[in-house]
Amino acid sequence: MNTLVVGSLAFDAVKTPFGQVERMLGGSATYFSLAASYFTPVRVVGVVGDDFGEAELAVFHERGIDTAGVERAAGKTFFWAGEYSENLNDRTTLDTQLNVFADFQPKIPAAYRDSEFLFLGNIDPELQRHVQQQMSAPVLVAGDTMNFWIQGKPQALRQTLEGIHTLVINDGEARLLSGEYNLLAAARKIHAMGPRTLIVKRGEYGALLFQDGRVFCAPAFLLETLCDPTGAGDSFAGGFMGALAECGSLEPAALRRAIIYGSVMGSFTVEQFGVERLRCLSRAEIDARFRAFRDLTHFE
Amino acid sequence: MNTLVVGSLAFDAVKTPFGQVERMLGGSATYFSLAASYFTPVRVVGVVGDDFGEAELAVFHERGIDTAGVERAAGKTFFWAGEYSENLNDRTTLDTQLNVFADFQPKIPAAYRDSEFLFLGNIDPELQRHVQQQMSAPVLVAGDTMNFWIQGKPQALRQTLEGIHTLVINDGEARLLSGEYNLLAAARKIHAMGPRTLIVKRGEYGALLFQDGRVFCAPAFLLETLCDPTGAGDSFAGGFMGALAECGSLEPAALRRAIIYGSVMGSFTVEQFGVERLRCLSRAEIDARFRAFRDLTHFE
Repeated sequence: MNTLVVGSLAFDAVKTPFGQVERMLGGSATYFSLAASYFTPVRVVGVVGDDFGEAELAVFHERGIDTAGVERAAGKTFFWAGEYSENLNDRTTLDTQLNVFADFQPKIPAAYRDSEFLFLGNIDPELQRHVQQQMSAPVLVAGDTMNFWIQGKPQALRQTLEGIHTLVINDGEARLLSGEYNLLAAARKIHAMGPRTLIVKRGEYGALLFQDGRVFCAPAFLLETLCDPTGAGDSFAGGFMGALAECGSLEPAALRRAIIYGSVMGSFTVEQFGVERLRCLSRAEIDARFRAFRDLTHFE
Repeated sequence: MNTLVVGSLAFDAVKTPFGQVERMLGGSATYFSLAASYFTPVRVVGVVGDDFGEAELAVFHERGIDTAGVERAAGKTFFWAGEYSENLNDRTTLDTQLNVFADFQPKIPAAYRDSEFLFLGNIDPELQRHVQQQMSAPVLVAGDTMNFWIQGKPQALRQTLEGIHTLVINDGEARLLSGEYNLLAAARKIHAMGPRTLIVKRGEYGALLFQDGRVFCAPAFLLETLCDPTGAGDSFAGGFMGALAECGSLEPAALRRAIIYGSVMGSFTVEQFGVERLRCLSRAEIDARFRAFRDLTHFE
């Protein structure tokens, strides 16, 4: 099934204890689409500036990603700079330049409107709803949000949430959105806002899936060398949606497998800076790590 | 198989957002032995003061725990007072009165020396080694330690670790002991100190088992009502050792099951203050939660 992602395309500058990159391809839609591309056809809607060239687009095209929905605007591409703490658990934003992303008004090409799977990246909830209204009849609408929108546009976000089937956020966002510290209580409140399925990302502790009163707990993969956590959450979302789209089922067992595939893709992303690891994987490597997750968690 | 635990018997005063108890039965050996008692015969070595009466001993005897190794000394029983933060993740020690525990010199009764499973609770590493030397030939020696000993008696601790098969500590302790933040690297260094098996407790995020280059990740159970985290780690250790002793195997599959049983016992403990929940469980309740852990983690 076709998967459409709407989100940011960016250049990032990242410093971690393992090195520093002055300028590299980034953005939520970038990580999402590369991760999803190993499972399903992917279409991207986003905006880039004059500085986003053929080399950047080639990263998408090498993975067969459809970039006809990437709009080019006069100006510079969204730029983010950040630095991670020694244990990679905290990060400080050093610079954010929205540039062409500031006036982003996502337009869904006619050929994209029949996409069965839609992922609404972390953008203004009003734009998220506007995107959804342009779609014909998606089978699954999933989305992300962040504290900035939870606190800054609560009414718009609540309206958008009514149309989202699967919300993919981190634990801090789930607590802020629900006003509940306990995640079972938070999930119940968020279900009542619309999303029947809630996925809570917990960074180095993995992810939780809440649906129909059942909980599934996926660990994070233990790695000896973590290099750069940037994009891990978006890669998780891409692997999750891609694996779901590939199998074409929304049954609980399919969701669980998809969460693990999401965790697999996130674990690869952090192994190198930016998209370096994510762009050149093989399906055999992905499936081998999926089996490693089973070995990590199963007991008789 | 018989399981012997050496550790503290105490009175605790605990304040959490859900209430306050001025004085309740506590101590690592108490939680450990109650948890283990659902699986295996348990023997306790510890010291109590004049204030530790029949009512306290009855809690052990109701669970069939052998307290012939509990020494009575003149003075008061070890007392600890603490207060937990709103989300229960942090605690502040308000008072520690070692009392009779300050001069504790564990003496293993002759009838206990053939115990197949030995758990060395979190006491001075020199005393831990002294206990071990009194045993005839235990099948499994497991133990706990803490930052106080890691920093205060590093040489004695290293000697003790050489005789410990299975070390059960939390993530902060594993990092301090090894000097490594990454837990895979930490496990490798700790294996080299002696313990072939390392179990790392991560509080609300569950536990990790490191053995022979393989890792097993057990989640914590998600509870809507957590009341008091005191003793959860010791209950985990008791459930783990008890389940292992019951099945009599040290194979990887048995260790994984035992880790889950440990997690089950820890999850019950936090539901009420002190040992209130732990002392009156049924094996059916325990096995039902074991199955719930499988539902929480398994995927096809």
